[in-house]
Amino acid sequence: MIRWLMSLIVAVSLALPAWAQGLHDAVTTFTLDNGMQVVVVEDHRAPAVQHMVWYNVGSADEPPGKSGIAHFLEHLMFKATETMESGEFSQVVAAQGGRDNAFTSYDYTAYFQRVAADRLGLMMEMEADRMVNLRLTEQEVETERNVIIEERNSRVENNPRALFGEQMNAVQYYNHGYGIPIIGWKHEIEKLGRQDALDFYETFYAPNNATLIVSGDVTPEEVRELAESHYGPIPANPDLPPRLRTSEPPQTAARRLSFADPRVAQPYVARSYLAPARDSGAQEKAAALTILAELLGGGTTSHLAEELQFDNEIAVYSGAFYDGTALDETTFDIIVVPGAEVSLEDAEAALDAALAGFLDEGIDPEDLDRIKMQLRASQIYGQDSADGIANRYGRGLTTGLTVADVQAWPDILQATTEQDIIEAARAILRPEASVTGWLMSAEEASQ
Amino acid sequence: MIRWLMSLIVAVSLALPAWAQGLHDAVTTFTLDNGMQVVVVEDHRAPAVQHMVWYNVGSADEPPGKSGIAHFLEHLMFKATETMESGEFSQVVAAQGGRDNAFTSYDYTAYFQRVAADRLGLMMEMEADRMVNLRLTEQEVETERNVIIEERNSRVENNPRALFGEQMNAVQYYNHGYGIPIIGWKHEIEKLGRQDALDFYETFYAPNNATLIVSGDVTPEEVRELAESHYGPIPANPDLPPRLRTSEPPQTAARRLSFADPRVAQPYVARSYLAPARDSGAQEKAAALTILAELLGGGTTSHLAEELQFDNEIAVYSGAFYDGTALDETTFDIIVVPGAEVSLEDAEAALDAALAGFLDEGIDPEDLDRIKMQLRASQIYGQDSADGIANRYGRGLTTGLTVADVQAWPDILQATTEQDIIEAARAILRPEASVTGWLMSAEEASQ
Repeated sequence: MIRWLMSLIVAVSLALPAWAQGLHDAVTTFTLDNGMQVVVVEDHRAPAVQHMVWYNVGSADEPPGKSGIAHFLEHLMFKATETMESGEFSQVVAAQGGRDNAFTSYDYTAYFQRVAADRLGLMMEMEADRMVNLRLTEQEVETERNVIIEERNSRVENNPRALFGEQMNAVQYYNHGYGIPIIGWKHEIEKLGRQDALDFYETFYAPNNATLIVSGDVTPEEVRELAESHYGPIPANPDLPPRLRTSEPPQTAARRLSFADPRVAQPYVARSYLAPARDSGAQEKAAALTILAELLGGGTTSHLAEELQFDNEIAVYSGAFYDGTALDETTFDIIVVPGAEVSLEDAEAALDAALAGFLDEGIDPEDLDRIKMQLRASQIYGQDSADGIANRYGRGLTTGLTVADVQAWPDILQATTEQDIIEAARAILRPEASVTGWLMSAEEASQ
Repeated sequence: MIRWLMSLIVAVSLALPAWAQGLHDAVTTFTLDNGMQVVVVEDHRAPAVQHMVWYNVGSADEPPGKSGIAHFLEHLMFKATETMESGEFSQVVAAQGGRDNAFTSYDYTAYFQRVAADRLGLMMEMEADRMVNLRLTEQEVETERNVIIEERNSRVENNPRALFGEQMNAVQYYNHGYGIPIIGWKHEIEKLGRQDALDFYETFYAPNNATLIVSGDVTPEEVRELAESHYGPIPANPDLPPRLRTSEPPQTAARRLSFADPRVAQPYVARSYLAPARDSGAQEKAAALTILAELLGGGTTSHLAEELQFDNEIAVYSGAFYDGTALDETTFDIIVVPGAEVSLEDAEAALDAALAGFLDEGIDPEDLDRIKMQLRASQIYGQDSADGIANRYGRGLTTGLTVADVQAWPDILQATTEQDIIEAARAILRPEASVTGWLMSAEEASQ
């Protein structure tokens, strides 16, 4: 606790203007004529920049049967273009002393490079090039598919927790792409081909479906000039389809699943509830759920930790998780890892009792104040990281939020009341929209 | 039993040639130049014909977010064409003393009329007309959408068993359209519009995606001449897409759900297992599962009935169901309705014990012989119904089977051995590919 207070004090003194005036990011936004949105986060403490291009497309935008194609294309974007050889992109970045990478999620795919500030133009030149000039050979696509299957093997197939999570998600969603893994189902990845990648690329990779985010030692004027020069000439895709997202029918049946694997060393109970995401202009429910996750399971002073770990020694670990930054309905997740002598059944019963107790007892205003202060503190720390700010805008803008929504979020969190949180908790903690999973060793399953 | 034997004897004497020579349908098949497949089933006992057009498209072929459009279009096919007024189709059929209707399933949509044999040409003229000349107004589409919403309300929303079944199916399938109801999710039906119907119609309604089946008092030569005259001039759709069907990832987690509704008078336990369908040239597993369903739960002499209803009085009803006529992986379903004093938990435990007992004990050859004789008898009865034969070919040809597959099926069933059935049972009765559902009254759920 002392260490945490010390950190807060340090953070507050470093960030005094923000703390005093409320949180305001040093961001500038504008849009190019071709529809490409631009966000600039100034930070002149070091002579470096982070250059990111975020596409408004992720795994949940994939056509049926093509799961994994968003992530596959992300890999293939490091292959040849009309003017660059395969692999040359990252070699150039490295030769300039920088580093680059990319990531794919349900709602977005992003590419970034971190380089010395005077290399920003070069990064834009290369990124704009691969936005339109990608050239794929059958051979390279095949090789990369094997890389991705190996990635899936190591991250998912060899990880019972990941396999369990996939089955949980698939049962949580009846009708929405969030029920399909980002990396893709293995049997569908195995069938992805060059034309699938090109179709996806030609449909979704265009300036009017992208956000450019530059953070670091740069001015908005410099970014605008460079962006207009490099990205400006790329025409908008007039046939860009709207994001087709199916929504869930009423979920009216409490679901359970058990997953047994001989590799499981530590069994646990997982619970997920369908939950609203942050919506543009209406982030209050998501704010309440964000705080609810902290109150319920956000560390050793949380309700679940007190009830399950310290008062009863039912659990060796418990946690609650919610991230509302999603285009569509997301999940509120809870996990309870029982102690050595405690059955999954008893752990689950204790979890349900603890949740009922939370709703009955209501929220201690001191706990709420503490959580709000922690959130404020972490936002203040966040102000220190231009890259963190860039990520925050990138995730927000690709999940249906506006710059104003992203900026309003900290204050909406602070304005959340005890009653908002209890109401949000009652609204989502519905058994009939939940999935309860038991991850078991094969031994337990046979008992 | 006596009554059943009597019926069999009557059936055998009526159908003696088929019985003596094996089952051979009086069918002729050919294909028009535009790709339309034709099946003719001759039956000259009455001067009537059944005229059917089956399209190789059903609810499992719908685009994401458009659930219900196959069934919606089926309704709209009774509206106006360029030369017929809305509703006139059925009026003409009725004026000729006939009757007509249509139906939609996961894999097919079919339209049929039953009329005097000399009206066959008129039926073809009208059916060929609406294959290409449908004209939809916004007003009629809107009216019909309300009809369909009302249909859903009465069949599903007011029927807890149907709602329960929808949630079971959605949990059974992670990645395939069989997890979505044929009639559509209500929230998606509400958004279906004229253009959705026209897109679906223009994509899938074409002679090269259809099978014409005519049964009754007609010769193949007559059908060919009429079909060439009426359907022959319609061009094939060169852009007909392949049937895009996603397949399931490994199902590795036993799932359970409970569904409570105050309208439930009789609670029960339902269990579904993912199961293979009849595949062209490889129908043996499906044949074994067809017989397994009869052995396990096909009436009062079945294993489940004996174990659960008569020996133990656990259940007032039990049944097992399997229909392998599907394009993709289907389900094997079991239901147990417990007695008044028996809990769902106890009923489920008794079901699992009975299944384990079945696998342990193996199959009594006399039981297998009895089931085979029943199947043979019902096939012989079926020979008496030209319409039944027409439906059998229609369902087979729209689910990936050939005429030869349909004809081979009775013999494949008869060739199934005890070992085939036990192997098939062991292969599908896997908890990790199953869903167990409890349909409960609200009262029970709160206990």
